[in-house]
Amino acid sequence: MDNFTYWAPTKYVFGRDTESRVGQLASEFGGKKVLLVYGGGSVVRSGLLERVKSALDVAGIEYLEMGGIRPNPTDDRVYEGIDIVRSHDVDMLIAVGGGSVIDTAKGIACGAPYEGDFWDFYCGKKIVGNALPVGVVLTIPAAGSEGSGNSVITKSDGLIKLSLRTEHWLRPKFAVMNPELTFTLPAYQTACGIVDMMAHIFERYFTNTADCEVTDRVAEGVLKSIMAEGRKVIDNPTDYQARANIMWAGTLAHNGICGTGRVEDWSSHFIEHELSAVYDVAHGAGLAVTVPAWMRYVAERNVGKVAQFARRVMDVADTADDHAAAMEGINRLREFYRSIGMPLSFEELGIEQPDIPELVAKLHEHKGNPIGNYVKLGPEDTDAIYRLMY
Amino acid sequence: MDNFTYWAPTKYVFGRDTESRVGQLASEFGGKKVLLVYGGGSVVRSGLLERVKSALDVAGIEYLEMGGIRPNPTDDRVYEGIDIVRSHDVDMLIAVGGGSVIDTAKGIACGAPYEGDFWDFYCGKKIVGNALPVGVVLTIPAAGSEGSGNSVITKSDGLIKLSLRTEHWLRPKFAVMNPELTFTLPAYQTACGIVDMMAHIFERYFTNTADCEVTDRVAEGVLKSIMAEGRKVIDNPTDYQARANIMWAGTLAHNGICGTGRVEDWSSHFIEHELSAVYDVAHGAGLAVTVPAWMRYVAERNVGKVAQFARRVMDVADTADDHAAAMEGINRLREFYRSIGMPLSFEELGIEQPDIPELVAKLHEHKGNPIGNYVKLGPEDTDAIYRLMY
Repeated sequence: MDNFTYWAPTKYVFGRDTESRVGQLASEFGGKKVLLVYGGGSVVRSGLLERVKSALDVAGIEYLEMGGIRPNPTDDRVYEGIDIVRSHDVDMLIAVGGGSVIDTAKGIACGAPYEGDFWDFYCGKKIVGNALPVGVVLTIPAAGSEGSGNSVITKSDGLIKLSLRTEHWLRPKFAVMNPELTFTLPAYQTACGIVDMMAHIFERYFTNTADCEVTDRVAEGVLKSIMAEGRKVIDNPTDYQARANIMWAGTLAHNGICGTGRVEDWSSHFIEHELSAVYDVAHGAGLAVTVPAWMRYVAERNVGKVAQFARRVMDVADTADDHAAAMEGINRLREFYRSIGMPLSFEELGIEQPDIPELVAKLHEHKGNPIGNYVKLGPEDTDAIYRLMY
Repeated sequence: MDNFTYWAPTKYVFGRDTESRVGQLASEFGGKKVLLVYGGGSVVRSGLLERVKSALDVAGIEYLEMGGIRPNPTDDRVYEGIDIVRSHDVDMLIAVGGGSVIDTAKGIACGAPYEGDFWDFYCGKKIVGNALPVGVVLTIPAAGSEGSGNSVITKSDGLIKLSLRTEHWLRPKFAVMNPELTFTLPAYQTACGIVDMMAHIFERYFTNTADCEVTDRVAEGVLKSIMAEGRKVIDNPTDYQARANIMWAGTLAHNGICGTGRVEDWSSHFIEHELSAVYDVAHGAGLAVTVPAWMRYVAERNVGKVAQFARRVMDVADTADDHAAAMEGINRLREFYRSIGMPLSFEELGIEQPDIPELVAKLHEHKGNPIGNYVKLGPEDTDAIYRLMY
């Protein structure tokens, strides 16, 4: 186990009707004038946005609005939000939505008090040292951004998708999590979320750092519960308990508790980010294709943890043969993805003629060379991994 | 899964040499003049106290000292600390030690800014609404107080041991956790800590709240890792990795992450608190006798979760017979306690003639009637449970 700092101060308010507490929570963390950030029409149509506004009204908190945030959110909306914050003296962001909305709010939160270009933080030129407080009303369990200090934004010019990771500045102050708000999520989007949260655990689980038994067991436990509850939410979208388990699992998958004390990997995410930036596929669907390909490739080079995953999480019978166990575990993972309606290949993802050399070139241009840690991956490796996605 | 609020804002700084960062951490959370609270001679002899003082000196932070805190800490030291804080304008407590030291610091932290008697909070007359910040340098992984908002203090007059639970006021601002500081813990004390942290999970795991799969799996994972790593630290007290896993597990066992979304139990702790208050036995040793007795009693009345524990944590082969599985799980738990040198009966605990009627009377006088939730326990029940400890 390596030395680590773990600091996750988000106040999670979880359960039915919790969105009625947004005003009180915003007050508790000092909000007087907030910018409400949200996505498409569903938060409007469902009445959620009105309920949030009412809660703010009751608490005497002023608000402005910025809607229409789209998946794979782009820098132009962040710049727009920064302008609104600055010109109206906004002192808190409240994101009503999923990862794209939250990540946009985070970009605004760190960009507004900074004199330079907020992109400096995402491309690694500067380190965040100040940010406006961010609150969240979560509607899509997937990205885990409600509990993380991270944000992913795509630069429209050049389709560069970069992630920013902060220790605590961009961790939301509070996250309101009502599982009922997820009842109307389409099956495909629900499944994408399930794949994404599992991937957030994989990126932390696959490590060469030895002797992280506690963190391993926690990660394995959350993975098992995601698969059990994930099948239920696909079968019955209004199963409150299954929705609740999935929602909480998505937070634990990415708030750092599954990664304490170890070197993390993140190459599957990097490999997928190029897919979703270039072909505009859903991040979770892209991961359903990427993760098994990555796992097959690395299992040939460093089988240990893949075999442990197969045995402890996928219940592959304990044999002496690590390689066979690993392959069976990966097959079962693919079967699980299939069972919740996820694509397993470029073709199923709707990418007919992937330009693999371009993907590889962009990947290493954006993310360096090599990428990953469990197995270090150069262009030859990532090229081979993309080719396993046919 | 029930509605819940989870807010655990402690900054954990974990690993080798981390005590050198105490001064910087105290500054970060606003400390200018701190009261160092500690226990017996070991933190002095080991040089730890000097290292902590040096770190404070370097950061330009003044400090006063209050040493000699004993196990099952008493109210008189809390009153003493409150006097020191008030007369010297202390603005932060730093506890260097284990649960008794941390809990004393917490009593001082909530008592000092309060006009009345700090005991009001512990006996339930008042709710904590303010507290000085508390920092921790942990030397004994067991109580989990480094990450919890709780504190347990014994009133010297009458031997009443009461726990205070706050949502966030008494959560430490930071906890420095260096596993090397635990190398010199005697085997018995190490084992007591292992039993205690497992019990903190049991109190949350045994619930009638259905559909908490994520929390169950996390709890089961931490329990499994405690047993695997616990055997190692008893065999080899200077095994850094095993010590590190045990130390982190002790935090996760009690910082609330194993209890989200469910009604908790806490009757084993209540039953044991009377033992350690009256007979001054080590809390962990008392729990090693109490927990299996409690589990045997409740398994006859509500077997489901005990059987789940047996199968998922104790690896009892999956049979259709819940009762048989539960009993085998309890036997294996007792074998585990035995293997790390823990007592399994009153006699082994050194209590020759327990006054069970007195224990039962005090228990329900202090903790109400009935106690517990997984099975509600009145005096007849707790009497029977004490009798299972012979």
